[in-house]
Amino acid sequence: MKVTLNRSAFLEELATVQRAISGKTTIPILTGVKLTLTDEGLTLTGSNADISIETFLNVSDEKANMVIESTGSIVLQARFFNEIVRKLPETTLTLELIDNNQVVITSGKALFNVNGSSADNYPHLPVIDNQPSFELSARVLNKLISETGFAVSLHESRPILTGVHFILRDNHLLAVATDSHRLSQRTIELEGAKQDFDVVIPGKSLQELSKTFKDEDTIVTISMMDNQVLFKTDNMLFYSRLLEGNYPDTNRLIPTSFNTEIKFNVPELLSAIDRASLLSHEGRNNIVKLSIDSETVTIYGNSPEIGNVEEVLSYLSVSGEAIDISFNPDYMKDSLKSFGSIDVIIKFISPIRPFTLQPADGDIDFIQLITPVRTN
Amino acid sequence: MKVTLNRSAFLEELATVQRAISGKTTIPILTGVKLTLTDEGLTLTGSNADISIETFLNVSDEKANMVIESTGSIVLQARFFNEIVRKLPETTLTLELIDNNQVVITSGKALFNVNGSSADNYPHLPVIDNQPSFELSARVLNKLISETGFAVSLHESRPILTGVHFILRDNHLLAVATDSHRLSQRTIELEGAKQDFDVVIPGKSLQELSKTFKDEDTIVTISMMDNQVLFKTDNMLFYSRLLEGNYPDTNRLIPTSFNTEIKFNVPELLSAIDRASLLSHEGRNNIVKLSIDSETVTIYGNSPEIGNVEEVLSYLSVSGEAIDISFNPDYMKDSLKSFGSIDVIIKFISPIRPFTLQPADGDIDFIQLITPVRTN
Repeated sequence: MKVTLNRSAFLEELATVQRAISGKTTIPILTGVKLTLTDEGLTLTGSNADISIETFLNVSDEKANMVIESTGSIVLQARFFNEIVRKLPETTLTLELIDNNQVVITSGKALFNVNGSSADNYPHLPVIDNQPSFELSARVLNKLISETGFAVSLHESRPILTGVHFILRDNHLLAVATDSHRLSQRTIELEGAKQDFDVVIPGKSLQELSKTFKDEDTIVTISMMDNQVLFKTDNMLFYSRLLEGNYPDTNRLIPTSFNTEIKFNVPELLSAIDRASLLSHEGRNNIVKLSIDSETVTIYGNSPEIGNVEEVLSYLSVSGEAIDISFNPDYMKDSLKSFGSIDVIIKFISPIRPFTLQPADGDIDFIQLITPVRTN
Repeated sequence: MKVTLNRSAFLEELATVQRAISGKTTIPILTGVKLTLTDEGLTLTGSNADISIETFLNVSDEKANMVIESTGSIVLQARFFNEIVRKLPETTLTLELIDNNQVVITSGKALFNVNGSSADNYPHLPVIDNQPSFELSARVLNKLISETGFAVSLHESRPILTGVHFILRDNHLLAVATDSHRLSQRTIELEGAKQDFDVVIPGKSLQELSKTFKDEDTIVTISMMDNQVLFKTDNMLFYSRLLEGNYPDTNRLIPTSFNTEIKFNVPELLSAIDRASLLSHEGRNNIVKLSIDSETVTIYGNSPEIGNVEEVLSYLSVSGEAIDISFNPDYMKDSLKSFGSIDVIIKFISPIRPFTLQPADGDIDFIQLITPVRTN
């Protein structure tokens, strides 16, 4: 195996597969990146217990400017290899596999000789037989992830809740996540999907996936396999394991009738919640109180040691009954951030029932739920 | 006490005094910032065991746009107060001291009520009687600090070495720091200084000091007191305690005759050392080897687990005996960084004697010393 190629093009691929490589693994070879050189180009592979990423640098890629002298494969310790390539002096580098799994890396007058492992010992990735699949743009997929991923549970006590539940049915894809204190659900229309499914994808896998796309116009082909999902682009395969178990029925959680409705500009409300949470973060209970009547809407936060804060909020419209309701401001901040710079309508039933947040423009395909905190 | 002022001007002063305020202190009131409002303006004070900083915002400062309604003083928990001010909604804020050391902070519709402590309980800063003093620009002072501060010891086993030794004698100011493995010394001419001194200033104090100057043209007046040094600018007093004890005589450590001399471009050498140290960092001994003969100069690094690296170095000139010498690459990197983008001359006696680094332009007022590592 011997190849000369552009250093920054190579570094970009290394950075992508590195997302799947953990320093902490019980399988030593998985701390490495697998390089496979054929006459068609260079394949890089990284993997851990949850995800596997394979990228391909085509010999015809102009930016990579690849000169292949001989083919072969090797596994190199990923963290070092990345550091070495990053610090090489010239714009190109040469990789040459010599005896005993040793790889010589040269660039300018710098010469590294590093110990690798045989690629024969690297685990095989799942085989893709022709599974039914559907397509999304990276833009839509990233939006779906940012709108739901934040609401997954971070605790392993109920592992199934650490994933996002995806259901494809009747040409609609529904994604929902809940940690049992709050919930976020987005539905999108999906024409031409051939087979329904119902899977739970780990939230962490989705976060890593959303960082791998260099261009939001990239088309991503998504295939479901037995216990894996594959996200495929022109030059990347991203596998994630699926979570096993039954996801709770979240549909029945979403209320449909309300007693109070209020419309806010999201950035304005977010700043005010942020200020109110400054003090509540110090208190024993991290809660803020929202007080709504027909005239005035006020947010309160306090910490016995530090002091208290109150702020009369600007709002766009309000209707229904007066209400005083307390909640964790961090859930509210996460929720508001996922809306971006739009207006939001918040609907309440009572101080002890979950309330909903939805875009004020009438987009019913995105809804969030936050459970309040009982204060008496 | 009641004042309305510009939020960003106030935040800038808060950030400066915050450098002296530690969350970890055995004296609770020192987690606070002291605010003292007089008809002349607002004084902010922060302090810890090592340094105290006092800044002054003049009532005539246009940017501060201060409206003073009544004078007074209070101590507020610094971390929270800073966070609160940072997140207020408007460009101005109002501070008002009410009963029981409570301060009301308002900006737009946001209203914070925070618990303070009486300023009477805040320790007094040292009194400045008319000590002899001298002046430096912030530019010269910062350069002096960056050229020597990195070489202080970080270990408390010999506390005196955690400081930079300053000696003023015969109109020359000498600053020297050593952790006993390497040394850095800068001399500057100082006309008109009235009184000689010999003090050791904590390296940490100097690092904080160098971050406080907003303008490198600022003139800094430096006064030595019994166990304190005061750095004074137009609107800031920065006190640091001095270290007690005898600083070792470093002058005798600096060799004057050599057997090998070599000239390098600093950025080129730095990159090569950086590459060589990638592998040595993993080895049990963090060392790299430099091999110089009349024709070729090579750097070597290795780690038994990962592999090895060698690089033939570009140099500007070489003279004297051939030498193989091993050293800690981190000391070399720190040293080279303090030179900036110039050429450097490195002079060796033997593989077991310290070597020197100096600017290649003949500036004899800046010299560094690194002790090699014996490898056999």
